[in-house]
Amino acid sequence: MSYHHSFNVRVRYGETDQMGFVYYGIYAQYYEVGRVEAMRDAGILYAHLEKEHNIWMPVMNMQVRFLRPARYDDLLTIRTTVPSLPDRDIRFRYEIRNESGLLLNGAVVQLCFLDATTQKRIDAPDFIKESLKSYF
Amino acid sequence: MSYHHSFNVRVRYGETDQMGFVYYGIYAQYYEVGRVEAMRDAGILYAHLEKEHNIWMPVMNMQVRFLRPARYDDLLTIRTTVPSLPDRDIRFRYEIRNESGLLLNGAVVQLCFLDATTQKRIDAPDFIKESLKSYF
Amino acid sequence: MSYHHSFNVRVRYGETDQMGFVYYGIYAQYYEVGRVEAMRDAGILYAHLEKEHNIWMPVMNMQVRFLRPARYDDLLTIRTTVPSLPDRDIRFRYEIRNESGLLLNGAVVQLCFLDATTQKRIDAPDFIKESLKSYF
Amino acid sequence: MSYHHSFNVRVRYGETDQMGFVYYGIYAQYYEVGRVEAMRDAGILYAHLEKEHNIWMPVMNMQVRFLRPARYDDLLTIRTTVPSLPDRDIRFRYEIRNESGLLLNGAVVQLCFLDATTQKRIDAPDFIKESLKSYF
Repeated sequence: MSYHHSFNVRVRYGETDQMGFVYYGIYAQYYEVGRVEAMRDAGILYAHLEKEHNIWMPVMNMQVRFLRPARYDDLLTIRTTVPSLPDRDIRFRYEIRNESGLLLNGAVVQLCFLDATTQKRIDAPDFIKESLKSYF
Repeated sequence: MSYHHSFNVRVRYGETDQMGFVYYGIYAQYYEVGRVEAMRDAGILYAHLEKEHNIWMPVMNMQVRFLRPARYDDLLTIRTTVPSLPDRDIRFRYEIRNESGLLLNGAVVQLCFLDATTQKRIDAPDFIKESLKSYF
Repeated sequence: MSYHHSFNVRVRYGETDQMGFVYYGIYAQYYEVGRVEAMRDAGILYAHLEKEHNIWMPVMNMQVRFLRPARYDDLLTIRTTVPSLPDRDIRFRYEIRNESGLLLNGAVVQLCFLDATTQKRIDAPDFIKESLKSYF
Repeated sequence: MSYHHSFNVRVRYGETDQMGFVYYGIYAQYYEVGRVEAMRDAGILYAHLEKEHNIWMPVMNMQVRFLRPARYDDLLTIRTTVPSLPDRDIRFRYEIRNESGLLLNGAVVQLCFLDATTQKRIDAPDFIKESLKSYF
């Protein structure tokens, strides 16, 4: 049981480097888009989380395997998986494929929850767990 | 009479694109570094301006001429000029040259001053005018 | 007579700065997306232009007015206009609006055409003029 | 036995996000700067590696722990370690500290060597091993 979501992004010219590959630091943005859209689809707006619930979600750690280069104008599919219900933190797994379905990149990104005022860690808010519960 | 300051930045790999040129959107960061270091040298810390004076300086407009490409690992010289004392806004002129002294890029960037709380425009604060006055 | 095209981009978290505004250097990427999609819609693939026609299109100059800040998660509309048939160079005008239709940003970006091998300027290739001719 | 090198970078405004933290995707650029300067100090110019030796060094994988946020205008120290002589690939360990010496970020980045023409993997070139040998 897990929550899956797929979203497309097209590689921008400014995201390439002089090898003609997407620069390795850009993937973090793709993961961000992947999890924000996955959460939106589950009814959780990250923008509201910050503005209305005063919660921030900074990244704690990230592991990335760069298997094959993504290239300019590639229409990438970011498959985002939430492998388990968030608790003290939330983990997202990613697979990024090009239009031929070739796996280019795999990653795991773990985020925690902060009270934006105190900047102290808190547990995953209940409404986030509720939104995801039915998938597990 | 005007205030001049020069600062070096080295081109990062991630700033190039697949033409092998610095991507045209990156120069805005170089201008930012140029004006922050020019202000630091005149005794104005932009970080303090935000934190202690509650003033933001958003960019209002920017004109850029891209004359020749900057390339990976180039050690660029950003020459920043404040052509007149700030008043309702502040203008910075930029010339970016490579190690051979070749002019690569010229720009003008105009910023205003905002009260960060009300997000309303204010005039240039007196301590900024004071710090720059002797150059004019 | 001119060629118009509209395209949406959603503001990424990584595109904001600590004012909570889209960083002023990011707009160059939005203009890039705007013109690439405008050209795609007119039957011109910029990726093919480079790979098959050996033509590069570097930016020569750019003028930007930042009227109001774009913010995280805003779904922006980039309206791209080609005001005249390309000749020695090509100009794109941009208007960026948020979901309320408020004008946030206006720009003009002028690009030239380079033979990628010689890196010398050439005129706009005929097939580009042909693709756009009917709009003028 | 290992090779160590330290280098400073100052956090740019455009590298922050609306939490007021350095965006998590930016650290990849700091690691790049760290390894390029570490290699330069050992007599290896990455720019020459590409241009004269026709060798590319793409990143294969990256593990990052984000311990504390870096903030605008922080003068960061990137400590880069090459823990073992490169062979089939090369690994870099990173520790990033702020001016108070507080550890903000730790990472390991592994790169391979590509013949830029064939885009096939090759072993670490001998001159790179030679440049680093005395440290091991």
